[in-house]
Amino acid sequence: MLRVDLNCDMGEGFGVYQANADRELMKYITSANIACGFHAGDAATIRRTVKLALGHGVAIGAHPGLQDLAGFGRRVMAISPEEAYELVVYQIGAVHAFAKSEGGRLAHVKPHGALYNMAAKNRLLAEAIAEAIYQVEPRLLLFGLAGSELIQAGQAIGLHTVSEVFADRSYEADGSLTPRGTEGAVIEDETRASAQALDLIKKGEVRTRQGNRIILRADSVCVHGDTPGAAEHVRLLRASLEAEGIEVRSAGE
Amino acid sequence: MLRVDLNCDMGEGFGVYQANADRELMKYITSANIACGFHAGDAATIRRTVKLALGHGVAIGAHPGLQDLAGFGRRVMAISPEEAYELVVYQIGAVHAFAKSEGGRLAHVKPHGALYNMAAKNRLLAEAIAEAIYQVEPRLLLFGLAGSELIQAGQAIGLHTVSEVFADRSYEADGSLTPRGTEGAVIEDETRASAQALDLIKKGEVRTRQGNRIILRADSVCVHGDTPGAAEHVRLLRASLEAEGIEVRSAGE
Amino acid sequence: MLRVDLNCDMGEGFGVYQANADRELMKYITSANIACGFHAGDAATIRRTVKLALGHGVAIGAHPGLQDLAGFGRRVMAISPEEAYELVVYQIGAVHAFAKSEGGRLAHVKPHGALYNMAAKNRLLAEAIAEAIYQVEPRLLLFGLAGSELIQAGQAIGLHTVSEVFADRSYEADGSLTPRGTEGAVIEDETRASAQALDLIKKGEVRTRQGNRIILRADSVCVHGDTPGAAEHVRLLRASLEAEGIEVRSAGE
Amino acid sequence: MLRVDLNCDMGEGFGVYQANADRELMKYITSANIACGFHAGDAATIRRTVKLALGHGVAIGAHPGLQDLAGFGRRVMAISPEEAYELVVYQIGAVHAFAKSEGGRLAHVKPHGALYNMAAKNRLLAEAIAEAIYQVEPRLLLFGLAGSELIQAGQAIGLHTVSEVFADRSYEADGSLTPRGTEGAVIEDETRASAQALDLIKKGEVRTRQGNRIILRADSVCVHGDTPGAAEHVRLLRASLEAEGIEVRSAGE
Repeated sequence: MLRVDLNCDMGEGFGVYQANADRELMKYITSANIACGFHAGDAATIRRTVKLALGHGVAIGAHPGLQDLAGFGRRVMAISPEEAYELVVYQIGAVHAFAKSEGGRLAHVKPHGALYNMAAKNRLLAEAIAEAIYQVEPRLLLFGLAGSELIQAGQAIGLHTVSEVFADRSYEADGSLTPRGTEGAVIEDETRASAQALDLIKKGEVRTRQGNRIILRADSVCVHGDTPGAAEHVRLLRASLEAEGIEVRSAGE
Repeated sequence: MLRVDLNCDMGEGFGVYQANADRELMKYITSANIACGFHAGDAATIRRTVKLALGHGVAIGAHPGLQDLAGFGRRVMAISPEEAYELVVYQIGAVHAFAKSEGGRLAHVKPHGALYNMAAKNRLLAEAIAEAIYQVEPRLLLFGLAGSELIQAGQAIGLHTVSEVFADRSYEADGSLTPRGTEGAVIEDETRASAQALDLIKKGEVRTRQGNRIILRADSVCVHGDTPGAAEHVRLLRASLEAEGIEVRSAGE
Repeated sequence: MLRVDLNCDMGEGFGVYQANADRELMKYITSANIACGFHAGDAATIRRTVKLALGHGVAIGAHPGLQDLAGFGRRVMAISPEEAYELVVYQIGAVHAFAKSEGGRLAHVKPHGALYNMAAKNRLLAEAIAEAIYQVEPRLLLFGLAGSELIQAGQAIGLHTVSEVFADRSYEADGSLTPRGTEGAVIEDETRASAQALDLIKKGEVRTRQGNRIILRADSVCVHGDTPGAAEHVRLLRASLEAEGIEVRSAGE
Repeated sequence: MLRVDLNCDMGEGFGVYQANADRELMKYITSANIACGFHAGDAATIRRTVKLALGHGVAIGAHPGLQDLAGFGRRVMAISPEEAYELVVYQIGAVHAFAKSEGGRLAHVKPHGALYNMAAKNRLLAEAIAEAIYQVEPRLLLFGLAGSELIQAGQAIGLHTVSEVFADRSYEADGSLTPRGTEGAVIEDETRASAQALDLIKKGEVRTRQGNRIILRADSVCVHGDTPGAAEHVRLLRASLEAEGIEVRSAGE
């Protein structure tokens, strides 16, 4: 039987700034990537999000980012592999402690924003991040872009990796995501997005913006919580997957 | 045979701002309280300090503080017990992750600055901090001011507590430390400081600024690294303790 | 002819976290207190808010707060008068520079949150804040709670002060605001809130929670932007004031 | 008569982290570039440094940097020209306010670290920074690397620019500084450093690492305060310049 994980970035508020979609989204996803306090998130938000995930049986993940709250971790910074290692260890620790204090356990790690994108292409950063995770706890799953340097680095060091794909983002011929801002980068039509997810899960391939088909491993579909109607989109995506007989459950189960 | 622990705050630099005394001090102490990134410290500094402690067989502790880098965590903030709980869990997690990634383990927790002082007198904050530690890992030792609410809260919840005393600080009749700024608050004469430490360890009592003698448990002596000649002071204190037949070793051993 | 100013805290987002009410609220108020980057706000948000104020002919004010982004500047911190002086100078400078770069001018200063509340009662802090404003630019107006130490300190040093009152907050017998959390602290009924504002502006008095009437100067009414329907509340308040023949315009005009 | 300015980065501490060289260095320099709170510096440090500069008749400058305290503003970040504009306006404002509150005036602006380096080569960032300065106050001097995009952008918008050179850094054939880490990048021999400064001031040229001579305008020599014996180095450099009949005074006088 085919199966897939649905992961979503969570707990990306800070202090008084809180998005409200998390509560609703948690009903439909299977893995929560929880912001750790660098690009977003704070101790109270992490705790609340961990509790919410535990209440819904959703796997708890750390979502480490660059130390750039003003830029939400989206601005590329020239950090060294050593700095990448250190900021990942630190942030994993923070979410792990809340998972433990709330009676759960940390299941996975997925880098955020510019750190995620840099680690997809830069081998040294990818290796540093994979090593950081491995050194803290080798049983942690590493989520990364399907076909990326990060996934390769994770496999090389001995981590279980989870290749993620996107239902609502267009792909380039080389397997990278079409950059935001480019015409057609975001697939807004839900039917087309569901169809792309199904293609990826059932056939392991996707049609690129250039028109060719490429092979991509799809262990998890990344869904977004920061758009209007996000929860409803995810509910429909999950329903369309299940209607095709695909089991939706956490990657680590 | 009498024994005592010597603890010192460590890793209290930030980014390019680094004190150099840590390397020397690590030779003489037995427990390092490592700043966690809120009042001081950052991921690179924590890692370096954890490595240094491991290299010297010094016990690794988390030293959580208020989120006030500009004030070094010394300014009282009106935080709720829930906020205290959350910031302690978060900061324990960060240091724990580095202890793990470097092949060691987190042994203890000691709050910093204003958080330490508030937790010494405010029962609700003390309980929240003790609970945070216990929920993350009940085997962690809790360091606190001898006779404080924090020690009591730790014992009540089932933590092993370590009562700390000061060689170079004067005590008030009620067992609190004479506030800095008060005449005689700091004992600068090394012979007098050593004598006070010996009194505390051997007899479990101290002569207060008011002249009476009070009973205080002394599991660990807190030494300071932020004064000129700090490492030499600590070397001499340790030598004077050992000359009296007192074994100096980590509280948890 | 009676006149009054309507002031509102503005630009209290940070990075990706942005409230959307500012645009609508700016139509009805006459003075904008713009967050300066310590408790909220950042360079981009200040600039956008300054532009918005200029576009609506709304007076530009700096809204300095404690350096506590995680707590939104609402948590009391034990800062010295010197620290209060310094953080006010710094924050005034930031908003002043944007007012200048956008072709406007800084008109007033109103402390935020815990800083505002501390300065209402603590004479030394009030004097430090008033002095900071005076030293940067003696023509700046100082907004503060009617009857507070801050207003007195401003007058003593030679600043023009603007005494502010609240339409939707209950008052205590001593002229302080009923603390949030107390039964009846917030007046949710719009008719009652408008009536209280009219009483304050026309008669210079208010009925307290205890039932007596006290005298309060009302140069400006503080309105809130952080509740659902905030802009509509302010529109109605302004309309009710104008219907009574009260001119609504900036305090400094 | 030949003349030159000596500028130095100042006030680059933060909170309890304070370098002590500023007091001594202030005796020998003519322009102080004061950190503004983003890469280093805080309100108290800015105030203290402004006072120190005023006491020595040293021109006060703002030294804006990237918002990266952990990396001291040295790590390249992918910021947009708009973001550069905003962070420069904000930081100029902060130092300007202290200059005003202490009875002085802001004389110049020099970007820091990665922002300085990016603005030397990236025209859009250079233009954004120049525009920010011009919009806040067109009389402010802009300090930048001699021959850089930043100097050109400043001239294009109508700012007075100050081209700075380095006595103790090696130059490449294209007029850029030899990157730190390259063999010979830093000139540690004081006699050679003085000779290079004299060549630049008297002849307007420098011998590059590759051996050719290039023309560079030298309005100001940048000296460093963060090395051991820094103040003594600067004292000697100033003495050697004056011995050659070069007047050392602030660029704006």
